[in-house]
Amino acid sequence: MKVIETVAQWQSIRTTIADSVSIGLVATMGCLHKGHEALIEQARQENSIIVVSIFVNPAQFNDPKDFKNYPETKADDLALAQRLGVDYVFMPAVSEIYPQGECLLIEVDHPLATIFEGELRPGHYAGVLTVVMKLFQIIRPTHAYFGEKDYQQCRLIQAMVKGFFLSIEIAMCPTIREISGLPFSSRNSRLTLDQKILAEAASQMIRSVNQANCEEVKYQLVQQGIQVDYLQLFEGRIFSAIKIGSIRLIDNFVDTDQCVYS
Amino acid sequence: MKVIETVAQWQSIRTTIADSVSIGLVATMGCLHKGHEALIEQARQENSIIVVSIFVNPAQFNDPKDFKNYPETKADDLALAQRLGVDYVFMPAVSEIYPQGECLLIEVDHPLATIFEGELRPGHYAGVLTVVMKLFQIIRPTHAYFGEKDYQQCRLIQAMVKGFFLSIEIAMCPTIREISGLPFSSRNSRLTLDQKILAEAASQMIRSVNQANCEEVKYQLVQQGIQVDYLQLFEGRIFSAIKIGSIRLIDNFVDTDQCVYS
Repeated sequence: MKVIETVAQWQSIRTTIADSVSIGLVATMGCLHKGHEALIEQARQENSIIVVSIFVNPAQFNDPKDFKNYPETKADDLALAQRLGVDYVFMPAVSEIYPQGECLLIEVDHPLATIFEGELRPGHYAGVLTVVMKLFQIIRPTHAYFGEKDYQQCRLIQAMVKGFFLSIEIAMCPTIREISGLPFSSRNSRLTLDQKILAEAASQMIRSVNQANCEEVKYQLVQQGIQVDYLQLFEGRIFSAIKIGSIRLIDNFVDTDQCVYS
Repeated sequence: MKVIETVAQWQSIRTTIADSVSIGLVATMGCLHKGHEALIEQARQENSIIVVSIFVNPAQFNDPKDFKNYPETKADDLALAQRLGVDYVFMPAVSEIYPQGECLLIEVDHPLATIFEGELRPGHYAGVLTVVMKLFQIIRPTHAYFGEKDYQQCRLIQAMVKGFFLSIEIAMCPTIREISGLPFSSRNSRLTLDQKILAEAASQMIRSVNQANCEEVKYQLVQQGIQVDYLQLFEGRIFSAIKIGSIRLIDNFVDTDQCVYS
């Protein structure tokens, strides 16, 4: 496994890879967990070369505190990537990805861009799409893997790929959950033990939601001291964002019977 | 020469062209004139394959009337392209380029994005950058040629190429002028004979501008019934936009001694 820190370094490797070779990209912000692991494993099965990018993208954090506190576990991440058979870890500095500062932005006008996370985190999806476009153009993968946990993000990336005619297959891979049903997330590591227990209980309540009991469940969550940013059915899918202490946790699912546990 | 009308048709040709082959793109809105001719000739000298795109991009017209009245000279354009040794003319319908409607937009935060044309044509450069990005991703050229007449556009495209790490060399080719000094423009064909004479006189006055006489020349233009949107020195370059009747004409130059006449 090779760790690449500059765009130029990757580009000179990329020119040695024939166009016919499949390259799977798993774009992450590090702090890898079982959700990422599943993405990498699927990429491994479907491609000759696997690239994992680790880049905490300042442009997608509407809250600078959230950016500053974003967990970093570099040594563990590299060890996991190595164990999973990743070929290249692309780990650039911010100045590599934003050589001119943050002067470009991809905006998307899409039903999923302005609700839920799009509404509550202004600029978030523009920041995501911009960095994903940069990574796509740098890495030039044939396949890219994103988790269904960030469903809105996946759908917007798919719209971007279609709208800009990128020759990249986007796979939306199932959310991976702990036995409690709580989806794996880098932010879980910031929960205290008490908060973790509360998050698990909240997750179970959320996953019992249907159109009829949605308001009732929301009430029960608030009763437990949990801030509910939204808990809502949209296009046959339940979307939730809650805040436990200062930790914000999102989830979404269509049918709890089909959840993937690890 | 082959005329291509769909993205899919070009994509299937593109896969047969090796990565090592240079492809020069001249992106136009049709109504080809000597300015385009110079771009195509330079592209011809520097590439194995030449693609000229002809696409009147609705997204870059802030004024729907301007879009509706944009001149179209398809038969002449194809004849010229053929004569100049163009290999492919890419001439898609609007629905090919905007399959999801106009839902994506590339915004650029750049000193040249918010002055002159950027200020007076809100949304214009976002529309330009978006369609150029689409064309770049579809055509996948190694080189692309733009005219210095649209200096702000060139610089913003260069910023986009750098910011998104596109492997495309952008050439900014000198403005081509009539003997009068008036730059060739598709919009010139909409001038009446009287308007044309006035435009030529205005161009000569504009090209006499320096920092000292700028306001004086502006006054003289207005005296002749010409609307002056701006006439201003910026970064050592004179930028102008005037309106003769309903026809808006732009120009820019550093040094009139180095102008290219045809």
